[in-house]
This record gives sequence, C-alpha cells and structure tokens, in this order.
Amino acid sequence: MRHFQEELDKVQRRLLEMAGLVESAIHLSVRSLAGRDEEQAQGVLRYEAQVNQMQIEIDEIATHLLALHQPMAGDLRFLTAAIKINSDLERMGDLAVNIVERAVDLMRRPPVKPLIDIPKMAELTQSMVHKSLDAFVNHDAELARNVLVSDDAVDDMKDTIYQELIRFMESDPTTVAAAVDLIFVAHNLERIADHATNIAEDVLFLVKGVDVRHHAEARE
Amino acid sequence: MRHFQEELDKVQRRLLEMAGLVESAIHLSVRSLAGRDEEQAQGVLRYEAQVNQMQIEIDEIATHLLALHQPMAGDLRFLTAAIKINSDLERMGDLAVNIVERAVDLMRRPPVKPLIDIPKMAELTQSMVHKSLDAFVNHDAELARNVLVSDDAVDDMKDTIYQELIRFMESDPTTVAAAVDLIFVAHNLERIADHATNIAEDVLFLVKGVDVRHHAEARE
Repeated sequence: MRHFQEELDKVQRRLLEMAGLVESAIHLSVRSLAGRDEEQAQGVLRYEAQVNQMQIEIDEIATHLLALHQPMAGDLRFLTAAIKINSDLERMGDLAVNIVERAVDLMRRPPVKPLIDIPKMAELTQSMVHKSLDAFVNHDAELARNVLVSDDAVDDMKDTIYQELIRFMESDPTTVAAAVDLIFVAHNLERIADHATNIAEDVLFLVKGVDVRHHAEARE
Repeated sequence: MRHFQEELDKVQRRLLEMAGLVESAIHLSVRSLAGRDEEQAQGVLRYEAQVNQMQIEIDEIATHLLALHQPMAGDLRFLTAAIKINSDLERMGDLAVNIVERAVDLMRRPPVKPLIDIPKMAELTQSMVHKSLDAFVNHDAELARNVLVSDDAVDDMKDTIYQELIRFMESDPTTVAAAVDLIFVAHNLERIADHATNIAEDVLFLVKGVDVRHHAEARE
C-alpha cells in the first residue's frame, strides 16, 4: 500500500504541473493578444500539446489505480476528483488555444481599442486556476469558496466587456469583425473561469462531502 | 455478480433516458427561438433540471459500483466511459439553457432575419447526440465515426452562419445586439456537437481501444 500512496502523490504532483502549464498558456494567450505577437501565439500551442499529453498520462495512471487497487472512501473520492480535474484542465488548454486563434485573426485587423479589461479578466481567471488547485492539494474549503466568489466577479467583467463592444459595433460598423473576436476572447476566459469553478466545487465535495453543483444557494 | 451486471444495465438505461431529455431540450430551445415562444423556453429549464438530477444520480451509482466491486477490463472501461458521457450530457443541458437565454433576449428585439440555418444546424446536432448514445449502447464504431463526420458539417454550418451575421451587422448597425445573440446560439449548438463528438470518441476507445483524442489524423 505504500506504493499505492506514492502513486496517488504522483497523480497530485502531475495535476499541479499540468495546472502550471495551463496558467502559462492563459497568460501567454492574452499577452499575444495585447501585444499582437504571433510568436507568443505559437507558444500557447506548444503548452497545449504538453497539456494534452499530460491529460492522457494522468488518465491512464488514475484508471490503472482504480483497476488494480480497490480504493475505498477517501482515496476513491480523491481519484474520481483527480479524473474530473484532469479533464477540466485539459479543456482550459483548448480554450487558451481558442483565444490565440482569435488573437491571430485580430492581428490582421486594425485595433478596436486599447485592451485593458480583457488582460484584467485574464489575470483574475488565471489566479482562479491557481487557487482551485491549491485548494485541492491542501483540502482548503475556504480557498475553494474564494474561487466561487471570483467567478461572479469574472462574470461581471465579461458583461461589461460585452456591452462596451456592442456599443463600439453599433457606432462604427467597421469594428464588427474585430469586436466579435474580442467578445469570444472574453467568452473563452469566462469558460476557463467556469472550469476553475468546477474544480473548486469538486474540492468542496471532497473536503465537506457537500455537493454544491446545481445548487447556487449552497455557494453563498 | 448478477446484481453487478444489473446495475451496469441500469447505468446504461439511465444514460439513454438522460440523452432523450437532452435531445428534447435542444429541440425545444430552437423551437422557442424560431417561434419566439417564451413558454417553450420555460420547458427547456424544466428538462435541464431533470438532466441535472439524473447526472447526480448516475454519478452516485457509477462511483458506488467502482467502490464496492472491483470491476476489471471491460466493465471498468464501461464505467469510466459512463462517467464521462454523464458529464458530457449534463453540459449539453446547460448549453440548451444558454440557447433559451439568448432566445428570450431575442424575443424583445425585432427579428434580424428568417431563421433557417440555425434550425438545420440544431437538427443535425440533435441527431449527433442520438447517434453517439446509440453507438455507445451497441458498441457501434461505424456509427461513432459517423458522428465525427457530422461534427465537421456542423462546424461548416456555424462558419456560414457567422459570416452571414457579421455582414448583417456591418450593413445595419441596429441588428448588432440581436446578431450577437444569434452568433452565440450557433456557438452553443457547435459546443453541443463537440460534446456528442467527445462521446463518439469515448465509444471508439471503448470498442477499439484506440485513443482518438488529440489525434485528428486518426479520425479520418
């Protein structure tokens, strides 16, 4: 069983590494957008390839552990949470790629406006990813709740960004194609934040045994 | 072990039921959009509540089976696939709700254009959900591949819809807010199709033992 515990620790370490790559991918995707830098966009694709590789690896280890050992209670909950977190992190990698696809498209168009809100939204989102994994590793329900609160802030930022961009399009039709790209960048950031929120909800379930999915009132 | 097999059958039946609810939700969301019918929009919310309930139930049964029995090889692969499919179906329910939120918003605005392409896209997406679950139940790799092919068709439809809506916005700025809503409807349908594709990929893995995720070339 010592070997089993070592394997569980390995899953946890790999998930932390993977989350680090995802954070870098988010950061670089928005830097490439703000700086109109195609080379940085390429860097995001490299991060995502690594994230995909890790997802398959972690999935294999976790499934193998479920099959070979008969984990009970806490260990079983840990492994099922790990499998879900793994999938959330992988999707965040995809969403960072969606952002750079928009960024590359935007490089070919005149800038709509100076980008201030989107980098701010990206920073908060990135910190949610970091905190959700910290909460997982440290069984920290307080920190997990903190992620849920940030998610509401991210949603508000997204609404503000949408409204501003719609006003831009209405007053100057030449901005339409670029503004739609920016709306999708904000949308992808919101979805990354949603995945961090999923992880925080899994952590609360793991720590407290409370299922907060589909129960907004329990999130207060 | 007979009891175990009965439980596995139950998981499969519940997933099929859940997929039926998801299909109804997609269908009704686009009907409510095309018919500007708020009552149908409410119906989608009721479907989604049922989908959420089933997701929690299926998750509990599957996790319980993993814990109590020590499923090997085929049964283990079946159960991990079931857990993933469960989560994909639940997200499709959320996406149908996203569509009706846009539909309700659109009811307050003058129509941009007659809706023909979006209902067509919805129909194909709905059939992908149906086929992906059929492929799962019947271990039908051929049908699963058929879903992957439809996904490319859905992507093309989405691109056509985007381009048309961007032209609308550019030529008539009063359509901007409504056209952005419609862009998101198409986007949500595309994401539902992506989840059906995830399921088809899981089926291929289950049947063939081949991991087609992250390997577009293997999907040909």
